Formats: sequence, structure tokens, C-alpha cells
Amino acid sequence: MPRLKLTIAYVGTGFHGWQTQARKDKVVPTIQGIVEAQIARISGCPVHLHGAGRTDAGVHAEAQVAHVDVPEAKGDIDWQVALNTSLPPGIRIVEAVRAPDDFHAQHHAIRKTYDYRLWLSRRYTPPWLHPFVWACGPLDVARMDEAARFLVGTHDFASLRNAGTDVLSTVRTMLSITRRPSGPLPAEATCGRAVLTWRFEADGFLKQMVRNSMGLLVAVGRGKLAADDIPAILAAGDRRRAPATAPAHGLTLKRVWYA
Amino acid sequence: MPRLKLTIAYVGTGFHGWQTQARKDKVVPTIQGIVEAQIARISGCPVHLHGAGRTDAGVHAEAQVAHVDVPEAKGDIDWQVALNTSLPPGIRIVEAVRAPDDFHAQHHAIRKTYDYRLWLSRRYTPPWLHPFVWACGPLDVARMDEAARFLVGTHDFASLRNAGTDVLSTVRTMLSITRRPSGPLPAEATCGRAVLTWRFEADGFLKQMVRNSMGLLVAVGRGKLAADDIPAILAAGDRRRAPATAPAHGLTLKRVWYA
Repeated sequence: MPRLKLTIAYVGTGFHGWQTQARKDKVVPTIQGIVEAQIARISGCPVHLHGAGRTDAGVHAEAQVAHVDVPEAKGDIDWQVALNTSLPPGIRIVEAVRAPDDFHAQHHAIRKTYDYRLWLSRRYTPPWLHPFVWACGPLDVARMDEAARFLVGTHDFASLRNAGTDVLSTVRTMLSITRRPSGPLPAEATCGRAVLTWRFEADGFLKQMVRNSMGLLVAVGRGKLAADDIPAILAAGDRRRAPATAPAHGLTLKRVWYA
Repeated sequence: MPRLKLTIAYVGTGFHGWQTQARKDKVVPTIQGIVEAQIARISGCPVHLHGAGRTDAGVHAEAQVAHVDVPEAKGDIDWQVALNTSLPPGIRIVEAVRAPDDFHAQHHAIRKTYDYRLWLSRRYTPPWLHPFVWACGPLDVARMDEAARFLVGTHDFASLRNAGTDVLSTVRTMLSITRRPSGPLPAEATCGRAVLTWRFEADGFLKQMVRNSMGLLVAVGRGKLAADDIPAILAAGDRRRAPATAPAHGLTLKRVWYA
């Protein structure tokens, strides 16, 4: 069975996240479920699509990565074209290539990059931006920069992890947190300065760790916490000590890195 | 009854165009219908919202203009805030101001500007761009520039008008047709060069005149027509002589001009 490595872009709006959900009463549209169904249809047999990680409902991806084994006879077809013909326009195959038989989209990932977009204006959010930003209003960005420095490095991120997955360790290395005044988003010409894109890179992220990190930085930017409260929050190892999770729809999985 | 001038932005996806549609079997979500209902709710009485013009289902607006008369007691409330609180996020009030009692959004408009966005790549359309571009593939843009010159000026545009509205004359003045290599759209950083935005300005547009003009220019860009076929197509005064209408979702009403 040839193994394929797929790179997948999607707008999370309208889907129930990445992961297939088994519900007895109805079929829930998820990215994994929809792509898997199309690969199975073309393959003529059931397949299993392994993603590099789950994304929550409403989260977008520019380059999610997944692997799948397809029948020998289907190994050399143009999977990008075949899938893009049948997938909904909100999901696109950016690349489909043959991968080594032992390639594993999740286990072999060494780093991930996420972007989180904030809308800083007090004015209305332009309708074309709405699905891609958290409209959090004005923030003290200098304070957020100061706070971000406390999150970079190797820490136990238990305080920034939501429950629901089993992991052996809650220690991760946040490689960098950077920001740009505006992201690659709609209507930059008219309102670019009000979009602030935060980029998070880590060797791995716990469940909702980016959204919880963003929620923490925004709380600092609003003056509800001081930057130097952060070490104590991390040290507590208690989710209840950190502020609320930032909304899903501001988040985009930008890249999954392999060695 | 104080008159308000509203400037309205919307993403056309998911709405059945601007104009309220009377159907006996069900309520059809239109921009006019939804905004009118919210103004009526706040006013406590029925109102009528007059738009500068209709936009088709799927067409977007950065600045549609409309006028409405509201009860005296409601003249001075902050209509922008009041409406944005209750409207769906796909529709936003950009501005709400008191207007002279005789201001008429449609009759007093002296010029309109529309943008039409093309996606020129043979590759897949990024999912966040899909609702905003016509993915027409590679085009000979120099030929389109040549063709556009034949549309600028005062002409009978009957060949580029779809049936369905009564107008006294099909003569209009196309003030300019210009293009920019990329528009204010999602993911410019990664794919900007593949977006080509055409801007059409006229003293008024007939029904689907921008979409038919774009369809004509794309036919020239694909080599199906020569630029100098255009004078004969216009002279024929016959819609059947011109190519098919370009898809609605590439079109955005950019601005309505008043004296």
C-alpha cells in the first residue's frame, strides 16, 4: 500500500473541526471525515487519514499535513487534482506526494507554526474579516511583548492546556512568539493596521495551548494581568489560574515541520 | 420623519442578494430584508430601505448606500451601533448619518465603482479566496487591456445588459476600467500575484453590466474574441452577441458616489 503525504488547506467555518466524530444520530462534517470519504471513494476501499494534529471547530489551516495508505493501483494517480475536483471549495489539497512507508504525519512532526489574528479596532469588524479574527478591541501591545517572553522556552504548560487528551508530559518548548502588524487577510488596504497577527512556534502544542496562550496575552494587553504574573501562572500547573481560551476562529495552522 | 443615509458592507455569500423577495412559501434572506427588519424592530414601525442599486446573490459590497426614514424619536440614536449589535456578522453598518429629507440613495447617485476579482492560477483556489474570485485560469492580460479601451466612453450597452429591469435608455458612460495586480484580499502574501482586480467606474450600470463586461474581457483574454470585435458586439445591441455573464461572487460594489 503506497503511503501519501497530503498538505491540506481549509477554512474552518462550517466544519466541526478536523477529527471525525462518531455520533449515532447524524453525520457531523469534519475535515478528516470529508477528505477520508473522498479518498475511500477513489480508492474503492476504506482508508484512514492520520492528521499531524487536531484542529478545533472554526480553526483554519493553510497547511495541515496528513498521511494515508492507498491501494497499489491508485498510488500514481494525481491525487491533488482528483481530490480537489470532488472536495468542497472550503477544503483544498495543496500538495499530494508519495511518502516513505514509515512516514507518520503526527509522530514525525518536529515543530508546528500557528498564526492567531486579532482585530484591534473598536469599530465594527469588516464582514470578510469576521471569520478570521478575534475582535478584541484596543490592546497594550508593548505589555503583551513583555508577557510573551515569559512563555518562550521550555516550560510545563499544564496551566495553558484544556482537558480532554492523554499526554505523557505537559512540558513543551515554545520556540518563538512573534507578531506582525497585519496578516495575509482580506481588505488589508483599508484596515490592515487594525489586524495584529501573532505567530506561535513550538516543538508541539497541548490541547488548545495556542488559544490559551493568546487568551493569556490578551488579558495582559487589557491590563487585567501583569506580564510578570505569568511565571506564577505557569508554575501553578492549574488551568483555572489562567484566563479564558481565545476564540477558535482567530487561529490558523500555518505549517507543520518535519526533519 | 428624519432620513438616514446608511453605508453598508456585506459578504454576499449566504444571502439571496440585496433585494427583498416576496415568496409565499418562505422568507428568503436578503440584505435589504434583514437590515429593514432590524430598523423596523428598533423603530417600532414598518420602514422601507431604498438601496442605491440591487446586487445579485453572491455579490459583495464594501459600501452599498441606502436611505430610510425613521420615527422622529429615533432620529438621534446611534444607528450604527444599534444595528451592528443585532445584524449577522456578514452585514455591517459602516456609517449611519442624518441626510437631507430629499436625499435619495438611488436617484442622487452620480457614479458607481465596482471591483471584479479574477484568480489567474491553474492551481487550486485557496479556500479563503474562493468566495471572492472567479477562478478563470491564465489570461492574456495585454489583450484585455486593449479590449477594455473599447468599453470606456459613452455607449449603448444593450449587448451587455441582462433582461429583467425597465430602463428608459441603455446608454451609459463607462468612465474608466483599470486593473491592479492584486486586491485587498486574503492571503496576499502567498498568492497575491495570481489575483487580478478589475475596477469598473460608470455613471450608472445596467442589470449585470459589470459581470457581462467582465465576461467579455475574459473571453478576449482567453483568445475566444479579438479586442476589435467589441465595437460590433456593442453596435448589435443584442445580448446574445456577447459572451456569458461572469460569476456573481467575483464582484464587489466598492463605492457609490454623490454630488
